[in-house]
Amino acid sequence: MSIKTRKVAVIGVGRVGSHVASHLVTKGLCDELVLIDTDVQKAESHRIDLRDCAAFGAHRLTVTCGDYADLDDADIVVISASGPIVEEERLLELDNNLSIVSDVAAKLKATQFNGIVISITNPCDVIAQYMHALTGLSVIGTGTLIDSARLRAALSRETGISPRYIQAYCLGEHGNSQFVAKSHISFMGVSLEECLQDGSGRFEGLDFAALQKEVIGAGWDIYRGKLATEFGISTAACELIDAIFHDDARVLPCSTMLKGQYGQSDVYASTPCVIGKDGVQTILELNLTQEEQALMTQSCEIIKQHRPAVN
Amino acid sequence: MSIKTRKVAVIGVGRVGSHVASHLVTKGLCDELVLIDTDVQKAESHRIDLRDCAAFGAHRLTVTCGDYADLDDADIVVISASGPIVEEERLLELDNNLSIVSDVAAKLKATQFNGIVISITNPCDVIAQYMHALTGLSVIGTGTLIDSARLRAALSRETGISPRYIQAYCLGEHGNSQFVAKSHISFMGVSLEECLQDGSGRFEGLDFAALQKEVIGAGWDIYRGKLATEFGISTAACELIDAIFHDDARVLPCSTMLKGQYGQSDVYASTPCVIGKDGVQTILELNLTQEEQALMTQSCEIIKQHRPAVN
Amino acid sequence: MSIKTRKVAVIGVGRVGSHVASHLVTKGLCDELVLIDTDVQKAESHRIDLRDCAAFGAHRLTVTCGDYADLDDADIVVISASGPIVEEERLLELDNNLSIVSDVAAKLKATQFNGIVISITNPCDVIAQYMHALTGLSVIGTGTLIDSARLRAALSRETGISPRYIQAYCLGEHGNSQFVAKSHISFMGVSLEECLQDGSGRFEGLDFAALQKEVIGAGWDIYRGKLATEFGISTAACELIDAIFHDDARVLPCSTMLKGQYGQSDVYASTPCVIGKDGVQTILELNLTQEEQALMTQSCEIIKQHRPAVN
Amino acid sequence: MSIKTRKVAVIGVGRVGSHVASHLVTKGLCDELVLIDTDVQKAESHRIDLRDCAAFGAHRLTVTCGDYADLDDADIVVISASGPIVEEERLLELDNNLSIVSDVAAKLKATQFNGIVISITNPCDVIAQYMHALTGLSVIGTGTLIDSARLRAALSRETGISPRYIQAYCLGEHGNSQFVAKSHISFMGVSLEECLQDGSGRFEGLDFAALQKEVIGAGWDIYRGKLATEFGISTAACELIDAIFHDDARVLPCSTMLKGQYGQSDVYASTPCVIGKDGVQTILELNLTQEEQALMTQSCEIIKQHRPAVN
Repeated sequence: MSIKTRKVAVIGVGRVGSHVASHLVTKGLCDELVLIDTDVQKAESHRIDLRDCAAFGAHRLTVTCGDYADLDDADIVVISASGPIVEEERLLELDNNLSIVSDVAAKLKATQFNGIVISITNPCDVIAQYMHALTGLSVIGTGTLIDSARLRAALSRETGISPRYIQAYCLGEHGNSQFVAKSHISFMGVSLEECLQDGSGRFEGLDFAALQKEVIGAGWDIYRGKLATEFGISTAACELIDAIFHDDARVLPCSTMLKGQYGQSDVYASTPCVIGKDGVQTILELNLTQEEQALMTQSCEIIKQHRPAVN
Repeated sequence: MSIKTRKVAVIGVGRVGSHVASHLVTKGLCDELVLIDTDVQKAESHRIDLRDCAAFGAHRLTVTCGDYADLDDADIVVISASGPIVEEERLLELDNNLSIVSDVAAKLKATQFNGIVISITNPCDVIAQYMHALTGLSVIGTGTLIDSARLRAALSRETGISPRYIQAYCLGEHGNSQFVAKSHISFMGVSLEECLQDGSGRFEGLDFAALQKEVIGAGWDIYRGKLATEFGISTAACELIDAIFHDDARVLPCSTMLKGQYGQSDVYASTPCVIGKDGVQTILELNLTQEEQALMTQSCEIIKQHRPAVN
Repeated sequence: MSIKTRKVAVIGVGRVGSHVASHLVTKGLCDELVLIDTDVQKAESHRIDLRDCAAFGAHRLTVTCGDYADLDDADIVVISASGPIVEEERLLELDNNLSIVSDVAAKLKATQFNGIVISITNPCDVIAQYMHALTGLSVIGTGTLIDSARLRAALSRETGISPRYIQAYCLGEHGNSQFVAKSHISFMGVSLEECLQDGSGRFEGLDFAALQKEVIGAGWDIYRGKLATEFGISTAACELIDAIFHDDARVLPCSTMLKGQYGQSDVYASTPCVIGKDGVQTILELNLTQEEQALMTQSCEIIKQHRPAVN
Repeated sequence: MSIKTRKVAVIGVGRVGSHVASHLVTKGLCDELVLIDTDVQKAESHRIDLRDCAAFGAHRLTVTCGDYADLDDADIVVISASGPIVEEERLLELDNNLSIVSDVAAKLKATQFNGIVISITNPCDVIAQYMHALTGLSVIGTGTLIDSARLRAALSRETGISPRYIQAYCLGEHGNSQFVAKSHISFMGVSLEECLQDGSGRFEGLDFAALQKEVIGAGWDIYRGKLATEFGISTAACELIDAIFHDDARVLPCSTMLKGQYGQSDVYASTPCVIGKDGVQTILELNLTQEEQALMTQSCEIIKQHRPAVN
């Protein structure tokens, strides 16, 4: 018997997709990596560059430029195909990206692929739901996983606590209507209120309105200086991939089909989920404050308004 | 200029100390490792065995059998010297181990060592406080870090959630009087109550009395089949070392001198602490329930009763 | 579809087997780990201790005490079952261990297991060949992988070069008849002769007779102080497991059935092999000096003399 | 005492420098990272993006936009400042980049920085030597470390052996005059000739003229499809950084001041070096064939012709 190795394909290797690939190689998260892009020359350039990176890796990781036929035995497919970014409002990228992912979905459905899809293309919630509707596959949207990381990073800067040891969530749309669940910020199970008593001054003076504004704007702050966001979002996607490959049952916020949570159904939006070998294994619903619940409802409404019809 | 490398010394390489060393080598957590033991032949055997292990490591890590003169430029010293284990009650090891660590403290104080001490020797809280009193150094007791890991492992088994993504604490003495802080169990900031609503059945039926009994007894369950505990406790010590070297500001439960927290002072006991390059950087105090606070008081009293006089 | 996770079983969790398990957990090399031992209490103690270790891991890794029925879907089985160690001569452990592994082989053959066997039990070459004969499975003996690591460690001490960046081999029997292939020592493709010209003095004064004696004796030097060897040998086994899981095509010395190499056939002995998802994928034969070839012949003869008949 | 953490600064965060930073964060190779660039907005965008990436890291890693005053206590400074790339001939970037790095050198010299400089800016050999001449610091040029990785990657593709387990070198200029040292290709100390006897067909049909052409052209093949090279070169720089921090005494090809090797002196060119906490600790000289020696002489002559005068 041959041992089953780990195979990931990335569809769309622009700045985001190529960095998902780079991150997979640097961390050695898979054994085979397939790049698919309509710009064959660009994909080939990334392939060579990634191959050079892999030559320093702890183990062999083969990178190929492939097509959809190579997906038959893949474990995970990342969808990062996208048209141009529209600054400040991801929803304006919808029409262009719907057309792109429709094409991807049709080709994906024609293969034997039966694994898990990580969907990054914006507007993330609408596109992830659309991919799920078109393919019937298990589709996870990266959603507010990146926004929540930005929130943890900001909280880390303010408190000096390591970001991996902070639990904090942005919920709802991966877009302008998301919100910080202030009711659920935790430093390893210790609440902000408890931390404030420590006398160190670490935890004092947190301005949540400013934090929320910073977090929602972070993507655009990055975009302005380099016309792309790449490092953070690709790391977020790889966090999901890592959790899936190890059947880790890790709790991560991401975009999934709500089934009654927060009074919502038939809509993809972000809430903490248990991620394992089947993708989203359990959806957790936070007991939000009344104010937060209103924000969640509003955010889900915005996503719903943008869902395309699926025949 | 030469770059400063990372140097750790382990004093006492019985089953626990040798496994701290093994874990440091396997994870590559330092660059230089010094083993000190009164049983020179045993230390030499471990040195050769660890050297072979290091030959497969990602980077060079030199292991030497040394003496106290080698500690002058060490960053971290681990104290795992111990007499025989007394089954079911760590406090009964006190007299023997006080004598052993008095000797270690005197020799340590005679060096230029000015780093951080990780104290594992049982009874952990009393010994760590004694080491601190004798040497004036920054001393962290591993305390209930291992018990809390056992609690997270048990909660993981019951819920299917990855243990690293569960926050839960045993507080007080690393001994029979410790207790589970039921009020502060969190699954990445999501409370047990919230998780119970998910409909998956994952979180139902947790019996905390049984869990607490299991956790307190786990050390002895391990001991009975192999006359030692080695893998878990050494990993716990290395978790502290890793947090210190990276100045991680990681929140970990460990034994430290309480300064008013829980109404206690001048006693080493375990509570979540922020660990960084200076050792314990901030002590967090949980808002316990009345019942838990009573258990904490009781546990600290037991530790206090066993503190030796320091001249 | 569920993603395939990585499953390893260790049969025989004495000092060696329990440390293979510990190393797998510490490095996170698999997702499921099954311990099998006739001493159920000891296996259970290791399971709890390893579970505590895993609670600090980067991802979930479940450890269970199982039986042979759990091997059906395992990827890799490690055989480390053994009777008492006989000091200074592994061949004297043969009769006892033949009986033990015969029983293991029969039970293993009765399962659906169709993966790769890593055989550590001594005398390694004879036992690995016997396991292969009895089961028909792909069996790799750890062979001189550990001895070669000891050689690299010694060369590292003498030259100051990182051991991972030294290539050097002990060939033949994992026992007293093995020899150092002096003709094939390389510092990343740079020969000792070339290195000697560098003027640094690093490479001068290597005494190969002393090195060979040290390497062959290292196991016993370890044994004398702790009545076990555990850290190095378990790391060696995990090096093979890592190479298999990643289909790494890594070149490692290990014990395999020679098929004409060195004029030998139908005998398990160590030579550098290419290790990947099928186990040994290619056997490399070094162009030995005449003197080395004679030593190889002699070593293989000793192994052959100890092979039991297989009905 | 506070533990010394690891601090790296990257000067010039274009595509190469920002990816060195990204790689450091993803692999967790340091604890503090300072970005310096004349384009403050771009540096700030990278800082935010990297901070988001770091929020998923195993430990805290702070990223700041700084200036030269922040270098006083840095361990390693990476120089990746560069003007526009000139396709197909790195030497044509010289005049522009000399002016850029002169400015960097002057500012660096005005600080208390006393660590090690990794110089990537092209033409790599000339610039690294110039930086060394201007600052008097220990300067390592990445040189043919990336080209040698490309060679190992190509050999891996042809033979199926893991690239980390292949030793092969491009020597001389990191530019068009470099050459493959065919005499020193090794598969873990096993020569190509020996491998060819294995009967597997893995090693047959290697066309070295084609490989050399492929390797020298790889940078431009990457450039054409994405107008940058980023993943491979940044990984190469981090390989040096990792070796320095661990005092690894790792053998890596890189650009250093030759001191009689290959009959050359007072010229930076690439040959395998032993890298540790002081930077280049030993320079190795390969016994080249006559033909290879002529290529080395020629390559060094080209570098020499481009060295600027230093007052």
